[in-house]
Formats: sequence, structure tokens, C-alpha cells
Amino acid sequence: MEEGYALACQTVINSDVVITVPPQEKIERRLPTAQRVAKITVPFAYDWSRDQTVQKYFVAIEPPGLDDNTDDVARLKRALQTRHGIEVQGMRIDLQVLRKVAGVLRESEWQVTGVLEMDTWMSPDGPPRLVDLLPGEQTQSCWGVAVDIGTTSNVVYLVDLVSGEVVDTASDYNGQIARGEDIISRIIYASKRDGLRELQGLVVGTVNKLLGRLTERNGIAATGIYKMTVAGNSTMIHLFLGLPPESIRLEPYITTTNQPPPVLAGDLGLEINPEATVDCLPGVGSYVGADITAGVFSSNICTEKQLSLFIDIGTNGEIVLGDCDWLISCACSAGPAFEGAGVQYGMRATTGAIEEVWIDEKTFETSYRVIGDEPPRGICGSGLISLLAEMFITGIMDKAGNLNAGLDTPRAREGDHGLEYVVAWSQETATGRDIVINKVDIDNLLRAKAAVYAGFAVLARSVGMDLNTVQQVLIAGAFGQYLDVETAIQIGLLPDMPREKFKFLGNTSILGAYMSLLSRENRQRVAEVAKRMTYLELSANGSFHDEWISALFLPHTHIANFPSVMELLKDKADS
Amino acid sequence: MEEGYALACQTVINSDVVITVPPQEKIERRLPTAQRVAKITVPFAYDWSRDQTVQKYFVAIEPPGLDDNTDDVARLKRALQTRHGIEVQGMRIDLQVLRKVAGVLRESEWQVTGVLEMDTWMSPDGPPRLVDLLPGEQTQSCWGVAVDIGTTSNVVYLVDLVSGEVVDTASDYNGQIARGEDIISRIIYASKRDGLRELQGLVVGTVNKLLGRLTERNGIAATGIYKMTVAGNSTMIHLFLGLPPESIRLEPYITTTNQPPPVLAGDLGLEINPEATVDCLPGVGSYVGADITAGVFSSNICTEKQLSLFIDIGTNGEIVLGDCDWLISCACSAGPAFEGAGVQYGMRATTGAIEEVWIDEKTFETSYRVIGDEPPRGICGSGLISLLAEMFITGIMDKAGNLNAGLDTPRAREGDHGLEYVVAWSQETATGRDIVINKVDIDNLLRAKAAVYAGFAVLARSVGMDLNTVQQVLIAGAFGQYLDVETAIQIGLLPDMPREKFKFLGNTSILGAYMSLLSRENRQRVAEVAKRMTYLELSANGSFHDEWISALFLPHTHIANFPSVMELLKDKADS
Repeated sequence: MEEGYALACQTVINSDVVITVPPQEKIERRLPTAQRVAKITVPFAYDWSRDQTVQKYFVAIEPPGLDDNTDDVARLKRALQTRHGIEVQGMRIDLQVLRKVAGVLRESEWQVTGVLEMDTWMSPDGPPRLVDLLPGEQTQSCWGVAVDIGTTSNVVYLVDLVSGEVVDTASDYNGQIARGEDIISRIIYASKRDGLRELQGLVVGTVNKLLGRLTERNGIAATGIYKMTVAGNSTMIHLFLGLPPESIRLEPYITTTNQPPPVLAGDLGLEINPEATVDCLPGVGSYVGADITAGVFSSNICTEKQLSLFIDIGTNGEIVLGDCDWLISCACSAGPAFEGAGVQYGMRATTGAIEEVWIDEKTFETSYRVIGDEPPRGICGSGLISLLAEMFITGIMDKAGNLNAGLDTPRAREGDHGLEYVVAWSQETATGRDIVINKVDIDNLLRAKAAVYAGFAVLARSVGMDLNTVQQVLIAGAFGQYLDVETAIQIGLLPDMPREKFKFLGNTSILGAYMSLLSRENRQRVAEVAKRMTYLELSANGSFHDEWISALFLPHTHIANFPSVMELLKDKADS
Repeated sequence: MEEGYALACQTVINSDVVITVPPQEKIERRLPTAQRVAKITVPFAYDWSRDQTVQKYFVAIEPPGLDDNTDDVARLKRALQTRHGIEVQGMRIDLQVLRKVAGVLRESEWQVTGVLEMDTWMSPDGPPRLVDLLPGEQTQSCWGVAVDIGTTSNVVYLVDLVSGEVVDTASDYNGQIARGEDIISRIIYASKRDGLRELQGLVVGTVNKLLGRLTERNGIAATGIYKMTVAGNSTMIHLFLGLPPESIRLEPYITTTNQPPPVLAGDLGLEINPEATVDCLPGVGSYVGADITAGVFSSNICTEKQLSLFIDIGTNGEIVLGDCDWLISCACSAGPAFEGAGVQYGMRATTGAIEEVWIDEKTFETSYRVIGDEPPRGICGSGLISLLAEMFITGIMDKAGNLNAGLDTPRAREGDHGLEYVVAWSQETATGRDIVINKVDIDNLLRAKAAVYAGFAVLARSVGMDLNTVQQVLIAGAFGQYLDVETAIQIGLLPDMPREKFKFLGNTSILGAYMSLLSRENRQRVAEVAKRMTYLELSANGSFHDEWISALFLPHTHIANFPSVMELLKDKADS
């Protein structure tokens, strides 16, 4: 209060006031440089060309006569079968398409292009569905979109289903952010009157905005987009479909369904062809969703012989361990510490965030790198990990996370919450205030990293394996993109393994959605992955708590599991 | 003009006028006494109880726990399979139902009633669809409706799908009548801007009105009606579904489809459960629609060894000839003469219509019976047939339909259109004008009856059979209910056969819809009937014109085909 700050949640307004939101609390509506990749490539080879989910077929139909008065639909089906060998028995046509059949056939003088969806949801041998009927020959292009609904940001890939290529991409923050930044606050909001409908409308609004950008930029009609595949965590999929998510939050954490049925775009308010199928990929449970099955599928660990560890760290850390024979998964509630929440000067990884810190082991002076090369406003997740590692390695902090009281530096000082360490002085920062880290922050971060590591340990233990037998560690997700393996191992967030075993995959959620959009076989394999993946509920697991307690230390109670860190500490001590 | 009458279509209005519509031109919004039948019985025995299309299943579901975190939908499916042996693999759930699953399961403490549609359209072995999920045990009743969409009137049967009984019925004029009384004028209206949407809304409005009456009268919720089957001619089905009917009217007379796919009630604006399937029965072609296939199925001629002739006379006469081995059908454009149009004093069969006429063979004086026992306003179809027969038998008219100029009665006189015969004097009528019939009227009626008889003849000839080998003549439809076989044979509308061969069936269209609602096997049999029935296009048939010319005489050029009429004429001549 003395410094002119008030907590909004604890302040009563008695008269007109001017409210200034300090810059470090603002969410910059800016994403990391839009991934306008020249060519997004599918990471392993397969032949999708004969296996597209939506295909266009041109047919020249014999006009009817008194001696052949077959009805329009039967005549169209007959032509599709004769000309293209399509099995039309039982072909579905929805009412809106049926209503235009007679007009299109006659206006185009019986030369038409049928848009067929060859598969409706996991019944690959089922009859096709007529999604649209276009006048004349229009088989040159056929559009689909793959969508990743993240809690924070949404991404859309515009895909040419004829060439199979990603033609353009667009991304933006999920419009739901204004109603709560994390999953839990969204679920609570959804349970309020009209909250679910509002959240559903907000995310559809964001996707529509991205679709609008893509169609405008590429000069295509929204009605020419005939299929959408969607990946995302289970809560996001529930909100996208308008399914009530309350039971996801409450023990025993149950979804309405992990395998959402296909729905029509028009029923969700999506601005593509209203008859297009929207296919939400299947998840495993409340906290291992379609984003993870899409990731496991697209990273191909489900078909490889080598043992892989797949991790996606965000508010929750989702972990999958396995190979071509088995897959086991869990979700550890890391909390939002790595996203900047629960840490006094924590912030998202946007402009003004300290993303890497170096500490001089003799003077304890800091240097740091800021996103956007601006004066810092706070510290983002990767910066916090880097900071923790440096403080630990340089001895500013012991293995329990206690700050060393006897250091000869003004940066280590007594603050409001006990000892604190100054990362940036007020004259360097954008806010004019010192950026510090204190014991409360450190404990929050230790709890978060311990939860993730305990997840690894419990998964490995549950199948009787040693973490060291893992042959590759695949790091997915937005946070993973900025994670530094070295510092993450130093604080014990990641297991101590040869560095070449770590691979960064980026957004595997949308990659899985994109691949599922391309081919029916892929879509089925995602379904198989979801079915095969065992889910381990950590809150019901006896050993999780013990593993978590052990992991609360830096890097770990059992330092022997972190030989490279042990070595480093020894070198430092020696020097 | 002298009498104070003006033709609206040929009058220019120059100033304010008072227009009086003469009573004989008004359509009385009154139907024949509502068929509130105590029990409508299915005409042949079958076991439908194990074969309902919609069934309710109560299940008590084991609540989830941390050790069994199966999702809601999978849990429900598991219970349906375990408890009731239902094959749930691939069970469909539409979005609106999916959205309520989590809430209903928890509010009802996992005691729920699933409403399953066991068959979606001709795929009897396909997976069921979850139409609704209700809290607690609600299996006592389950409602469906059968609907007949006639050009003139619409009928709805409310059916208890548990007992299989018709609980109540309601009927009213098709709301489209205000936009054209016959099929052709409706098709023309539909081709105007927004005309199709308007006509679709009008017929759905009529059906909703009838549904409202039935639900109110029987104290049931509209959302508790889970299935609708619909029969009607092809144009009515097109308008009901919102399909453009133009090509039905134009050579070569093609429908969009003769086998409409199932649609959801909500998509048509029908006020029953929005997830209920609306199943329009299949037809054969533009002029042999679902009303006829429903009739052929429900009259059972398709499974009997004896040769049957099935006829439904209205604006069009639809005729089916066949037995259990083969079925051939045609439609003859009788025109609207039997419905009162094209005849100066013709009118619909409502209050004030002369429905039967007797002429004294000596004095040529008439007596007649009027619907509602009121002063007559005109003559309806059955009255016209009766009048023609009497005029012919008494010699007022010769076999070519020419009035006898030398009769000693003031009733035979010169009118505006040549000779005319006075049926009722002005002082007897409601309009204060003489009710007469003239040569133009007679020619129109002869053309109509000749078209129907020529249809019989061409059908029989096309399969190389004699009409006399027909073992039963089944007369369906509203007009058929009032048809007098004796007079119809006397004018040569019906073939001259032993009278016991004729049977009146009433509304076989809704009977077929009702039976299809009860059981999947029935529904499939209707589909088979439609598939089996050959359609003979009379306008492309070389012998139709000759047969029609022969049938323009009374009763027929070949009088030998009408032995009973020949006998009667001989008796009259003798006496």
C-alpha cells in the first residue's frame, strides 16, 4: 500500500478511483513469432494418398428420360459407383445437402463434383457420406483444417487435402483466457449460469477468427473447408463441444467421454462448411487428453522398439512411458509455477520476461536475457528453472532450497517473506521495482518440479523398469520448446541422462491432428493409441507421495541418480 | 355479370369495392367426423414386440471411483450391454444428448433410462443410437407418431410403443391448401421465392398443431415422442422435407430421392423430441409415392398368392397390380374432376355437397342426399359419379355423354354451354341458383374416369393378363371411402366384376406408417415393396392413348367388358 499497490481482490472501493494495472501484470497479446513454416513435414513416411478422409469425385451423369426415371440421388450414386468404383450402398446424405441435389444437377447440366467423406469415425468400412455437391469439375483443391485447442493458445493449420500439404497456419490466444487462465478456473466458470455456453462460444470465436485469417489470406471460401480434426486436453475438448466439464475437476475425475463422436461444424457454430465433420481426437482420461494421444501418435513412440519417455509440461505435466508393445501414462499436477503463477515475479513467456539467468559464482552478480531485449518485467518458466539451477550450483541456495544467509552480496537480503535474492535491481527493470525470488517462490517451484519427476519415477516403477533404461526423452509442448535440458537436469526436473537422448518436438498435438486429417489409417492409429494407453491415477498411487517428497530436494534426495550434477558440484567445490 | 357475379381473375378494380365470395366457393374448414377409433388394428398378425424401433432401458450404473475411471459414456454403454445384452459397439450419440449425459447420471445418482433407437434406416444390424437419457426409471411408456401427409388433409396417430396401440388420432386440412389446392399448384408455388420454405413451414405447422392437440389431450410431453414415421405422395414428402419439387412436375418427372434418409425432428422444426428420427417411407417414383407403398404393404397384397388390384383415386389415380411374386404400378392423371374442380358446380365432399343422386326413369325428376342434410351448394365426386350413372341408365345421356335433346322435362334445357341438366332448382339450393351439369362437365368427368380405367387396362396388358383374373380389388384413400361400387361400374370407372371382390380399406397410407413405426421388420418390408414395385410410365406407353379413347364411352367402347351394365340396360329397355 505504501508503494502505491493494492490487491484488487482485497480492496473496497468507496468512491471514484483511477486504476493502473502495473505492466508486469498485463498479458501481452502477442505470441511467439507465428509459425509460418514453409513446409510442415510429417515425421515418418506413409502413403496417405489412397486413404484421404475427404475426397472429391467428378462425374458426368446421364440425364434422366421417360425410359430411365431413376431419382436424382440414385442416379448420382450410380455414376459414382460406375465411374469411381465407390461403394455407395447406404451412402449418407444430410438434409441440407439433399435439398440442393436437384438444383445443382440441373444447373450444371449433370456435370458435378461430389465431396465424399470416406469414413465417418472409426468405421473405415462403413459407407461414405455426401458432404457437398458442387456444379462442374471442382477437384483441383479440397480443404481441411487441423486445430489445436490449447488452454492458452489455439493453432489452426490449413491443409490442402489433395496435396496433403499444410498451406498456411495461424494462432492466437484462446479467447477463454479472459474467463480464467488455467483449466480449473475455466471449469469453475463453466459451472456458472450460462458459463459453459459462453466459454464454448469464446473458443469457437477464436477458431473462427483464425479460420477467417487463413481463408482471407489464401483466397479460399470457408464453405470449401470440408473437414476439421481437433486435438486438445480433455477440458478444452469438453468446452469446445459444450460438454459440462465439472466432473473432470472433482474426484474421481471423470470425463463425459474420452472418444467424442463426430459432430457437424454447423452444430458448433464453426465457420467452415456446415456439413463438415468435426472430429475431436480421442483422449485417455480427464488429465491425459487428445493432445497427448496425438503427441504419442505423431512422435511415433507407439510403433518403435526403443523405450521412450514422452513429456508435455505445462500447468499439468503429462508423461507417457512405453514402446510398440505397451504405453503407460500419468498426469502430475505441477501447478502453474512454471507458467509464472504462484511466483511473486513470475510471468508468462512474453516480451519483458527474463528467460535465462547466469550468476557469477564469486560475486553472485547476475546477468540475464530478456524476451524482446527490453527491460525486464518478471521471470518466465525457463528463466525460473535457469535461476534455480544457478542459485543451487553457485551455492546461493542449498539442496533444500534454503537461501544461504551468510553471502557477501547485497542481492541476498531479508524481505517481506524472509530471505530473498535480487535478480534485477529496480533501475534495470521496466516496473521500477526490484525483481526478487524468495523462499515461498522457491518452494512452489520445488513442489512443481518434484511432481513431474515423481511422475517419471512412479511410471517407471509401476512397470518395474529403471528410468536409465529409457532410450529417448521426447519433450513436447510450448513450454518444452524453451526448456534448457542442462538446467532442467540440474534442478532435478528432468532425469540425468546423456543429453543426446533428449529431443524437442514442438507442438505434437496439432501434428497428430494434421496427420489424422490426412488419412483414415492415421485416425485409426490415434484411436488405437488411446485405447492401448494405460492411465495411472497418481492420486490413487501409494508410492507417488514418497517419490514426491524425495524429489523436493535439489536435484533429488538420491543424488546418485544425478551423476552429472554430482560431478558438476564436485568440480565447483574443487575449484 | 348480370347476375352480380364477376370472375376475380378477369376483373379490374377501379375504386373501393365490397367483395362477397359466394358460399359454394368457400372451403369449409371441416373434415369428416374425426376418426377417434377405439382401437386401430393391424390387419395381419406379426410379432412386433421384440422388434420395436425405439426402446427404453433402465440401468443402475456402478458409480466411478479412482480405481475405475471409465468415462460416463463408456460406463453407460457397459451397463446397457451387461444388463440388457445390447450391442453398444459404435453406438451413436448426438451432440445434444451427449451434453446432458454427465448431468443426468449424477443428478439421478446413476439410475437412468436410456432411450435407444435400435435401427437407423435400413441397417437393421447397425449399432443403436442413444436418442435420450432420462433420470431414474421411466420405461412405462414410450411414444411415437405415425403421420400421413395428404395433399388435402394430414393425419397423426399417437402410438404407445410399449403396448403398440394407437392411443389417439387427430387430423386437419394441410395448411398448404391456402397456397394451392392440388399438387401442381403447390409445386409451382414452391418454385417462387421463399415458396418452398413457406410450404415446408405450413405443413410442419399443421403437423405441430395436431401433435399439440394429441399431447395436450393425453397429458404427455412432446419431448417424450421419440420417433415419427411419415407417409405421403412424393410431392408432399418433398415439401415436408424442404426438397425442391420442380422436377416432379416436368418431364421426365424425377424426384430428388424416392428413399429419403432419416432426418432429425429438430432439423425440420417438428415439435417432438428434437433428437427423434423422422423416417419418411420410401416411394417408387414421382407419382407413385410412399402413400402407395405404405398402402400396398399394409394391405398385404405383396405377400398374398391371389392377384390383387390396389387403387387410390384422387387427383391422380394410383394403381398397383400384383401378388407376392410381382408388383407393377402406374399413375393416371385423372385431373381434379372427382374432387369437384373443372366441373361448374363441383365441390369438395364437405357440408352442402350432393353426394348421391337418384333420377326417376319416367319423370326424370331427381332426388339427392346432401352431406350434413343442408340445402345443397354443389356436387362432390361421389355425387357426380352417381349423377352420371343415373343420367346414363335413365337415358338422359347417351354412351358418348351427349344429353338427349328430346326429353319431356324442364330439367333438360339449353344453357350457356349447350344442353344442360338441372339437378337442383334454385329454390332448393343454398346459393339461390340452379345446380346443373353440362356437356363440358360431363366431358371432364369422362376423361377422368377413362384415365383411371385405361390405367387398369394398360397395367393388365403389360403383364399379359386379363383384368377378369383379378381376385380382389382394394380401394384405398379418402375418396375411395365414399365411392359406390355399383355406380362406379356403371360409368366404367371400375371394372365390372363380382361385387364381393371389392374391398374398401380407408387410409392405408397412415396404416403403413403406423406399422413401420412399430417394428423394424415392417419398415424393411415397406422398403422391399418399394424396391420390388415396377413403375410403368403411362405417358411413355404406346397403348395408353388407345385404351383411354376406348374408355371415354359409357361404360366403355367394348360394352362386352361390362356384362352387368349390359344386363341392366337391357332390363331397362325391356321394361
